[in-house]
Amino acid sequence: MTTKPVLAITMGDPAGVGPEVCLQLLANAELAKSCTPVVFGDAEVMRACAKQAALPFSAPIIAANDWPTTSTQEPSVVDLGIIRLDEFKPGTINAVTGRAGYTYVNRAIDAALARQVAAVSTAPLNKEAMSLGGIKFPGHTEIFAARTNAARSCMMQYSEEITCSFVTVHVGYAEVPSLLTQERILDVIELTAAGLERIRRRKPKLAVCGLNPHAGEHGLFGNREEERIIIPAIEVARTRGHDIEGPLPPDTAFLPWKRKSKDAFVCMYHDQGHIPVKALAFDSAVNTTLGLPIIRTSVDHGTALDIAWQGKARPDSLYCAVRLAVQLAKYGR
Amino acid sequence: MTTKPVLAITMGDPAGVGPEVCLQLLANAELAKSCTPVVFGDAEVMRACAKQAALPFSAPIIAANDWPTTSTQEPSVVDLGIIRLDEFKPGTINAVTGRAGYTYVNRAIDAALARQVAAVSTAPLNKEAMSLGGIKFPGHTEIFAARTNAARSCMMQYSEEITCSFVTVHVGYAEVPSLLTQERILDVIELTAAGLERIRRRKPKLAVCGLNPHAGEHGLFGNREEERIIIPAIEVARTRGHDIEGPLPPDTAFLPWKRKSKDAFVCMYHDQGHIPVKALAFDSAVNTTLGLPIIRTSVDHGTALDIAWQGKARPDSLYCAVRLAVQLAKYGR
Repeated sequence: MTTKPVLAITMGDPAGVGPEVCLQLLANAELAKSCTPVVFGDAEVMRACAKQAALPFSAPIIAANDWPTTSTQEPSVVDLGIIRLDEFKPGTINAVTGRAGYTYVNRAIDAALARQVAAVSTAPLNKEAMSLGGIKFPGHTEIFAARTNAARSCMMQYSEEITCSFVTVHVGYAEVPSLLTQERILDVIELTAAGLERIRRRKPKLAVCGLNPHAGEHGLFGNREEERIIIPAIEVARTRGHDIEGPLPPDTAFLPWKRKSKDAFVCMYHDQGHIPVKALAFDSAVNTTLGLPIIRTSVDHGTALDIAWQGKARPDSLYCAVRLAVQLAKYGR
Repeated sequence: MTTKPVLAITMGDPAGVGPEVCLQLLANAELAKSCTPVVFGDAEVMRACAKQAALPFSAPIIAANDWPTTSTQEPSVVDLGIIRLDEFKPGTINAVTGRAGYTYVNRAIDAALARQVAAVSTAPLNKEAMSLGGIKFPGHTEIFAARTNAARSCMMQYSEEITCSFVTVHVGYAEVPSLLTQERILDVIELTAAGLERIRRRKPKLAVCGLNPHAGEHGLFGNREEERIIIPAIEVARTRGHDIEGPLPPDTAFLPWKRKSKDAFVCMYHDQGHIPVKALAFDSAVNTTLGLPIIRTSVDHGTALDIAWQGKARPDSLYCAVRLAVQLAKYGR
């Protein structure tokens, strides 16, 4: 008998591609060697999705009340009984599926905080559905930060090709400059360094991007955000022993040889890092939240409503998320 | 005897990598089959750079007064006599080289407007050096627009892998939202469509990026710039017959299959397009200015002062710029 970490996998928004990528994960014998994935979701939804998307579904179903007291080493579904099939239409934005997806996440967080699971990997939520459902959080990162009372946390997108962490994420373009502070940038540098050290088992080499074109070109563009905020944060981080280059001109930060020489890039805003990650590692990037008391990884794609429940969604990103969660769980938080 | 278009190649900032990539162009027999490149610069600088960077230099030198009345079919240098070697140190930022680089560009524009050359391809200027030298233009795009009295123009970065045009370019991050107008976006869409039609000889498929993360996710992020400004511009463009998808979430706009299906992406700000272009086509992208009465292409890199005059700079980007200029010159403006 071997021991394997138990991972909570949230089913995501029921109307999106979450259920079908979870079905594929449950059937993946290779991943089941290194962990026991337990899907937090609705068995009725999984069953209907399997039928419609022509996917196999033979995993054990555990009633919510019987878990975690029922031990398992097989990939399983914990049936939380949150939503009925007749309450929504797959592939559409629904208040009720927005709330259901949010509930699975909360149950998984409870399980992780209670040490019933070693980590949480999340299938995609739909921000508009959550908003319709009265949930104010813009995404997983913010839910996990709030529910775990994390003093400081940040999103990181991890892949072998390129890794980016974020000073700001789900805010409008125009709000970004007012949210940049020396303290926040320093927090994200330190969280990124700690996260990469856990993954790479050595001191990481980091790069920090500027905000303005050409990183402001010594004050020619922008409001000297580089000189006023970013450079002072970098200087403090260096005095604390971190290996940092920057602020780099954002457009040349991600050149091939730069990507090879850096473990991670600290980005000032969502698209500064999401554009190169998705362009270069669209099917292998994993989203993780750094700074939490629990381990959390996530797929790097959305609910893809246009192809939901059709058996077209690729599970690669969820597999990568599970692999990273196992790796982080193995080495401790 | 064949006829070939004569191209003015500006030498760029003398202290940067411009002179050495021009030297390599002059020695390129393959490119000389399709055009006659004439470097607008200083012969003394070219000679000294050739010696220091260990590059051959045997091209004919034509005195400024003898050009264009001296006909040539050989790659040549027009010696404008702007700067002396003892006035600057290669690899450093100098007011005098900033002004010299600007002067070469102006002479090349004069030659193009007078129909003495078929197109202009430019080696890199240094914005800081120009600023020190009292030149207020942030870059080539703006110089060409002003000098040719273009009613509307925009920057485009062209490559086989990905092509982006820009609604705003060399302005600070925070200034971008106030510069987005329906008129300007419509102008850039039309300029891009016309430019790509010349290159591809068919109606192009365009994509327009949003400004905010997830293109605002229907108003969840940002100040509804998509709904207020970008979508109305797209709708007008469609009524004029253009094939446009958008506004796309910026991070998923550049996924591999999206890149394959679109001829060009209209980007709202510098790094939205420069990040993917440089990450994906770092050595083949060409910068061109659309909407001018003359043809202008440019290298996609800066002066790279850290490696200037060392023979390390690769001429690939200048070669691509020359090839695109020849292509555009062949099919008319």
